[in-house]
Parts: sequence; structure tokens; C-alpha cells
Amino acid sequence: MNSSPLDSLIAAVAPVNERTAGEARARHAALAKPVGALGRLEDLGVALAAIAGRCPPPVPGRPALVICAADHGVHAEGVTPWPQAVTAAMVGAFCRDGAAANALAGVVGVEVHVLDVGVAADLPDHPRLHRRRVRPGTRDLMVEDAMTRDETAAAILAGAAVAGDLLAAGADLLVTGDMGIANTTASAALIAAFAGRPAAAVTGRGTGIDDAMLAHKTAVIGAALDRHGPRDPTDPLATLAALGGLEHAALVGIMLAGAAARVPVLLDGVIAGAAALAASALCPDVTGYLVAGHRSAEPGATIALTHLGLAPLIDLELRLGEGTGALLAVPVVRAAAAALDTMLTLEDLMGGQAP
Amino acid sequence: MNSSPLDSLIAAVAPVNERTAGEARARHAALAKPVGALGRLEDLGVALAAIAGRCPPPVPGRPALVICAADHGVHAEGVTPWPQAVTAAMVGAFCRDGAAANALAGVVGVEVHVLDVGVAADLPDHPRLHRRRVRPGTRDLMVEDAMTRDETAAAILAGAAVAGDLLAAGADLLVTGDMGIANTTASAALIAAFAGRPAAAVTGRGTGIDDAMLAHKTAVIGAALDRHGPRDPTDPLATLAALGGLEHAALVGIMLAGAAARVPVLLDGVIAGAAALAASALCPDVTGYLVAGHRSAEPGATIALTHLGLAPLIDLELRLGEGTGALLAVPVVRAAAAALDTMLTLEDLMGGQAP
Repeated sequence: MNSSPLDSLIAAVAPVNERTAGEARARHAALAKPVGALGRLEDLGVALAAIAGRCPPPVPGRPALVICAADHGVHAEGVTPWPQAVTAAMVGAFCRDGAAANALAGVVGVEVHVLDVGVAADLPDHPRLHRRRVRPGTRDLMVEDAMTRDETAAAILAGAAVAGDLLAAGADLLVTGDMGIANTTASAALIAAFAGRPAAAVTGRGTGIDDAMLAHKTAVIGAALDRHGPRDPTDPLATLAALGGLEHAALVGIMLAGAAARVPVLLDGVIAGAAALAASALCPDVTGYLVAGHRSAEPGATIALTHLGLAPLIDLELRLGEGTGALLAVPVVRAAAAALDTMLTLEDLMGGQAP
Repeated sequence: MNSSPLDSLIAAVAPVNERTAGEARARHAALAKPVGALGRLEDLGVALAAIAGRCPPPVPGRPALVICAADHGVHAEGVTPWPQAVTAAMVGAFCRDGAAANALAGVVGVEVHVLDVGVAADLPDHPRLHRRRVRPGTRDLMVEDAMTRDETAAAILAGAAVAGDLLAAGADLLVTGDMGIANTTASAALIAAFAGRPAAAVTGRGTGIDDAMLAHKTAVIGAALDRHGPRDPTDPLATLAALGGLEHAALVGIMLAGAAARVPVLLDGVIAGAAALAASALCPDVTGYLVAGHRSAEPGATIALTHLGLAPLIDLELRLGEGTGALLAVPVVRAAAAALDTMLTLEDLMGGQAP
């Protein structure tokens, strides 16, 4: 496989627009409220103006959640009590509107899409299931590279293709989601490698494992990092291939496609954070298009966001994935854009009477 | 004036329902996700089931924001750089759909109502303006009691009456808002009195005052607390009358009316927190019906919430009032209820295969 489609995708990402960011900052200083009184909502509005390249930035009317689903060879190492079959079962739940992500997407007005980029089971057709499986799950990252370079690039392009279809259909905010039993293990390995932290710092309880399984999971991640050796900063694709999941690669593609279209990408938790580190290493300009939806309870999530310079909007101790944390942040994104769009200025309101 | 309408309102508040709370807890343990993986959204769902007295609790489809507006005699002490006329001007902005609260209410699907319970200016009629002015602003709390007991009770009943009208029209979530130049001063005094903290601990910069004005504001609040003397725990109405604002009293009425109707009351920032302390002192059972929308940047807000045992849902450093912080939490409330309503159970999904 030729890597040039990936190179083209990366090359399509331009820096965010500092001029429109400045316009948003000036507008916030003039609006009918004390300067800075909307707190981090003002910073978010500025970021959205920089992303869109216009001020006021558009209020997202048609956000799309893409739940990237895949299985993991490292499941064989006993890092989770959940059977691998849960990945496919949860894809079924997303299609039946029966998962947490569906419940939350319904109340915040977000379309749910599922991308099978590597589930290790047969899946029936469904209108919201996008079938772009690269392989039925990764290899065991403790033993060998989880993916080849070509598989990794193919999974990135699969994510970008689905995002491109959604953008073409009018999506104006991309929300990341994930499903893949054992994917907090791969996420922790990626975060350790990209942020330069030891396995013990990034490894969490995922679905809620006990102390013994946590110690084992940490040892597996440590062994994988040792096997992979020092990260080559000039070759982020190699690190993603060695330690990542197919859904991480697909999420990288979604981030690149959103950035190329100047549409914000709202990140869910630790899986998205791990993917964002890979995306940012491949294409530093992509970081400006990422909005951190929430702070997952997984320790690696905070490490990833700190490394990226992103602050989460929601912090409610969620640790479910599927996009649930990011979905709760969708109204916050809309609010930040709407404040710049519809508020009167102090001059409109008071003339010369304001302090 | 006879205090019995207030006594009746207080007597109409029943404790939240522990049985339906238990049903919600059991349902969360059975849903298709790891136990506890929705974090604080699960606790909120349990609280909503306890409030409604049924599980699943209703997903709020018609929330109403009530912005309680009033002026403050303590404005004369120079505690803010903003002219008092801004209160009335902002009422105009709420009616013209031009304030931050309107922008945020629009994106989260909340009706905006304004209650004039004590603005010191003529206000034109408007369909969303509820006219129940008790007096045109309070007296100066540093010099004398801000309100009489009868005025305080009348303002509480004004808030309860507006809330009652909205509930009768179908409102299923009450969202608190406020507007009143100098009202962070009255709020700090109330919080100091009800939480037993010194003026310096509760006084903040409000709209963003400088160090000199902050020192003066703290001294004013300290003098008011000295003037009022030790709080009589058996007479919370006296403390509210001495130190509070008409909008604080109206907010107490909204909280009591919501609780009596088993409808949750979503609190905005420091003004709502101060009012909630008064409401809770008047009627301890009301506390179970309160949901803390956000953590205001004002120091007194956190002290009030801690005293009430409430944890905020949103923490984005807002310090604007109007209900802006609470509005951002409306989708979180909907999400917590929806998760209990629409999710499959693990048994539905996996049969006997789950761990």
C-alpha cells in the first residue's frame, strides 16, 4: 500500500485562524456582561472561531457521533474480565438505540454512527453501521506489533472516509466514540509512549478491575513498551501500529478529516486522548481543532490532555467510553458559539453608562 | 401580613422518596455498562428518581428559567462599579433575547422568564416579564435590615406564585437565575451568616472588582454581619430579611414550590447558593430537591454548596449569574434521567455471558 493518501490527508490540515480568534476575543470584551464573566466558555468561543475561520463561529446544528469499534489481540493476556464478544454485542446495542451513548445522544441532538474498523465477529447490516473492517481485531501488542503500517494507514483512512461522508452530508461537529473490549490497555500503552510516562502512571481500572488484574494489566503494558523500545519521534505511525488499536487509528482519521474541513472534533475520554496524541504527532496542526469533551476517570486521560494542552469541559467521573463524556459537552460547544452570535453589546444596552 | 401562606408552602414539601432512589440504584447496577461507569450521572439519576418519586424519573422536556431581578440598597456603599440602572437594562436584554442567558437557554431548550420582585426602575410590559414587585429595591443592609419580615415573606410567595404558574403550564424543571447589581454583596452576607463563616472567606470579586473595592466590600459585609449580630437558628426568616435581597427571597419561593411539586430545582451560582441556604434553614426537606448546576467562581458559592452537601455538575469558571451556569447543566439532568429510561440491561444484551 502506498502511504500517499495519508500524506495528502495530513497535508490538507491548515493551522487554525488566529485572526478570527482575535475577533472573537474582541467581541467578548464588548458583549453585555463583565469582561471574562463567561469564564472558559469565552476561551471555547475563541477556539471555535479559530477553527471555523469566522466570527461568530457556527452553532453546531448537526453533530455526528462516530463510535469506532474494534477488538484487541491483547485481550488474550487477561487484562479485563469482559469477554471479547461484548464488543460485537455493544455494536448491536448502538444499532438498537439501547446503549448509554444512544440515551445521551438523544437528549443532546446528536446522530449516532458506528464504524466497524476491526470487530472480531460477524455483524448484521444496519443503516447506522459503517463497514470498513481492516482486520478482525489487532494482534497481541505484548507479543508483536498490533498492526502493520499498512493496516494502520488503512484504519486511519477508514475513519477519515466515514467522517468525510458525514461532513458531506452536513455534519458540523464530529464527536468521537469508541467500543472495544481491552482498549484501555492499548490506550494506556499509546499514552505512555507518546507522553513519555511509565506504565504505572497511565494504567487505570478500565471497566473496574480489581487490584490483582490492575497489577497484571500494568505489567502487560510495561512489557509491551519494553518490546517496542524507545519511540522514534520522527515515525509516529510506527508507535501507533505497534501499540494501538484499529479504533485508535480510525479516530486519528476522524480528527484529520475534521481538521481538514475546519470542523471541530469533540474528544471523548482515554481512547480519544490516546488517539489524539498519535494524531498530533502525525500532524501538529490538528491539535487546534480538538476540543476535550470530558475528563475520564482513567488516569491516562488526564495525562494525554495535559500533554496536548487541552482542558476538559465536563468532569463527572465517567469511565464508560462510547462517546458518553463528549456527548455531555455538545451543548457547551453550542453555548460557546451562541454567546458570540446572539448577545447584545454593552454599547447596545447602556450607551455611555457602563463602567 | 399573616405568615400562614408561607407556613403552608413549607408544610407542602415532603421528603424525597428513598424507595424510588433505591430502584434507580438497582437499575443502574443492571444496565448494559460496567457498574458505576457513568460516574456522577448515576448519582444524579438516583437523586432525580428520589425527587420525582418514580423510576425512571421523567426526562425534563419543558424546563423554565426564572431570572429573579431586584435592586439593593447596599449599592449606595460603593461595592460595585456598575450603576444600579444596569439591573433594569438587563431585564430589557432578557426580554429582547439579547443576554447570555437567552443565548444559552436557546441552545439547551429552556423557556426564559423574568420576575421583577424589586427592580428600582419603571419597566415596560413584556410577555415574559412577571410583575410582582414587593418594593423598589432593598434597604441598605449595612445600616438597617434590608427587608421587613412581611416584605421577605411576600417576596418568597411572589417567587412561589410564578413557579406555581409555570408548573401548572407544564414546566418540569425549574432553573434559577438572578439579576441585581450588588447582589453578590447580599449573597456573601447570607452565606457568611448561614454557613458561619467570616466575611473574608465568602466575599468575591463579583463582576470583577479591583483589590481596593474588594477590601471595601469585605468590610461592608463584615459590618452588616456585626450589625445583625449572632444568627438565631430558630428564625431563618430574620436572617434572610436582615441581609438578603428580594431576589434571594423569590428564589427561596421557587425552591419551595418546585419541591412541593416534586420537580427538581437546578441552582445557578452564588446568589442561588445563598438563597438555598435560607430555603434549607426554613425547610430542611427542600434540600433533596435541589441540583447544583455549576460552581461559580465566587468563593461563597463553593462554601454554600459544601454546607448544603451538593456537588456542582459544571465547573467552567463562570461568574455571570442570570442562570447561565445552571442552563449548561440542563442537558446533564436530561442525560441522567434518559440513561435510566432507555438503556438495555446487561441481561438483555448478553444473557449469561457477562462477568
